Amino acid sequence: MKRTMVVGVMGGGSVGRKDADDAYRLGRLIAENRWILLNGGRNAGIMAASAKGASEAGGVTVGILPDADATHASPHIRIPIITGLGNARNAINVLSSHVVVACAGGAGTLSEIALALKVGKPVVLMNFDANIEEPPFAGHRQKGRLFRVETPDAAVETIKGFPYVRQTGALP
Amino acid sequence: MKRTMVVGVMGGGSVGRKDADDAYRLGRLIAENRWILLNGGRNAGIMAASAKGASEAGGVTVGILPDADATHASPHIRIPIITGLGNARNAINVLSSHVVVACAGGAGTLSEIALALKVGKPVVLMNFDANIEEPPFAGHRQKGRLFRVETPDAAVETIKGFPYVRQTGALP
Amino acid sequence: MKRTMVVGVMGGGSVGRKDADDAYRLGRLIAENRWILLNGGRNAGIMAASAKGASEAGGVTVGILPDADATHASPHIRIPIITGLGNARNAINVLSSHVVVACAGGAGTLSEIALALKVGKPVVLMNFDANIEEPPFAGHRQKGRLFRVETPDAAVETIKGFPYVRQTGALP
Amino acid sequence: MKRTMVVGVMGGGSVGRKDADDAYRLGRLIAENRWILLNGGRNAGIMAASAKGASEAGGVTVGILPDADATHASPHIRIPIITGLGNARNAINVLSSHVVVACAGGAGTLSEIALALKVGKPVVLMNFDANIEEPPFAGHRQKGRLFRVETPDAAVETIKGFPYVRQTGALP
Repeated sequence: MKRTMVVGVMGGGSVGRKDADDAYRLGRLIAENRWILLNGGRNAGIMAASAKGASEAGGVTVGILPDADATHASPHIRIPIITGLGNARNAINVLSSHVVVACAGGAGTLSEIALALKVGKPVVLMNFDANIEEPPFAGHRQKGRLFRVETPDAAVETIKGFPYVRQTGALP
Repeated sequence: MKRTMVVGVMGGGSVGRKDADDAYRLGRLIAENRWILLNGGRNAGIMAASAKGASEAGGVTVGILPDADATHASPHIRIPIITGLGNARNAINVLSSHVVVACAGGAGTLSEIALALKVGKPVVLMNFDANIEEPPFAGHRQKGRLFRVETPDAAVETIKGFPYVRQTGALP
Repeated sequence: MKRTMVVGVMGGGSVGRKDADDAYRLGRLIAENRWILLNGGRNAGIMAASAKGASEAGGVTVGILPDADATHASPHIRIPIITGLGNARNAINVLSSHVVVACAGGAGTLSEIALALKVGKPVVLMNFDANIEEPPFAGHRQKGRLFRVETPDAAVETIKGFPYVRQTGALP
Repeated sequence: MKRTMVVGVMGGGSVGRKDADDAYRLGRLIAENRWILLNGGRNAGIMAASAKGASEAGGVTVGILPDADATHASPHIRIPIITGLGNARNAINVLSSHVVVACAGGAGTLSEIALALKVGKPVVLMNFDANIEEPPFAGHRQKGRLFRVETPDAAVETIKGFPYVRQTGALP
């Protein structure tokens, strides 16, 4: 069975309007491409905005919650996974995604970028503030594992350009 | 938003024909009730059978895998959650389910029964071999947290009889 | 290097006087045998009592805490491991122990017994209320993986009788 | 009870000679200050070198292993914690440490730096290649949470300079 591609959208729980708007549009585009959106699940910031975008476009949304119940889950998350693991759930976020898009965020988002690179998942930075010409990012960029884009549309184009997606419509 | 009820189906990776057939039918019934089926995700035993049943009846299937990749995932799992946590993922299985049905299984399934009871989720034993008139089960049974049934249809009837489901069609 | 044996002592956070006294003595005996005591780390019930016993006898005490900080750690835990994982940490408790002694407790303790059996660690029941002549325990008992004792001294004698310990003074 | 300070030493499993030598000396200094050394536990790279240094200086060494058994544990780890969690154990590494020193390493080490900053633990970079004048690090540096040093001795001096340590000899 060819599995549906899962796009992980990572980002902070407290972000500005433009960053939330971009995350919303990214969610819409993910759903329009019939990919599954996966994020941290909470009803805040990038998580809430991207889930809303995907949900309103008819997509499937999966939220990997750090909490031990669904109290703080976004209403736009269709499949809440209740981990009770705190930040350790960040490792699940990246393992369960074929590709990770990092939106505006702080140290938690940085940990997800790092964990994704560690396990070999491609990472697209969109609104995440990092100088990827400098270490510790430059090496990953040179190996073609780390990308920077300016818009949600460019993020999706980047994903579509990955060799495996270009050939088969999905990542392995 | 009223969330869709998630029924966790736990059980062993190596089971006999009747146990697998019952798990298959349980999966079908869960899907026919428009509930989400959640299990351990692997392509073996109760996991594979229940996912197949739910999938063939058009349901949504979520698999919480112990592995760090999807190699051993059942093809009938639509949403594979790749945890890389080994048996620690059993805690996620029960937190993410509104109710747990325990099919035939061994010590791993017993750990899921115990973790579910620990966090207050109702548990329905179906084909799991335990004397629930004896400790450590008798107390949970007397408190109305632990049930025993003989068939998949009876498992679903038991779930429908829970007060919250009876009133609203879903668990909280 | 031959590693020091780690004895995991599991049990509830709220127990009666006799159960706490037995856990205290068990902790003392573990330390007197120069084994490491490992438990759930909290300042309550079996955890607090067994840590106190081992600590007062000069032993090393390791607590695997479910919390994200050390607020609820027993002062008799020398090495607090802060997991932030909730009940998922139970899997770590048993993986990190060579043998598990289950004292008085409820569903959490039952999950640790089950997880230990799942990964092949011997389990000694002391004050944990279960009928091990009945399923799902009887099979593990018959295979020589599950034992019942009445006193802390008998628990330690049972551990010493395991073939590997008898030969080398430590478990692998 | 005043707890002994735990210094987490993070770094890669495959490093050069100078980086290993520095990690060895850092381990020695941690032990000489009667602090506990905590690391990822494996018998490789920074983990093996720092554990050897601390162990040979008579210190206590704790290893939080990603594996489900102790096969790959350094012989210089006195207390191996067997998590079976893969990279998710990185969250435990930082929660269990009062301060984190990041040695030479890659994406895994970066994830530990990020997770430590996320939960408010001070981070000292020693041989970890990053431009901390640039985002996403500059902000943490300006808040006094992220430090850079060139030698093990400077790392220890930095730790001793933290206000809480200066006053009481230990971190909270």
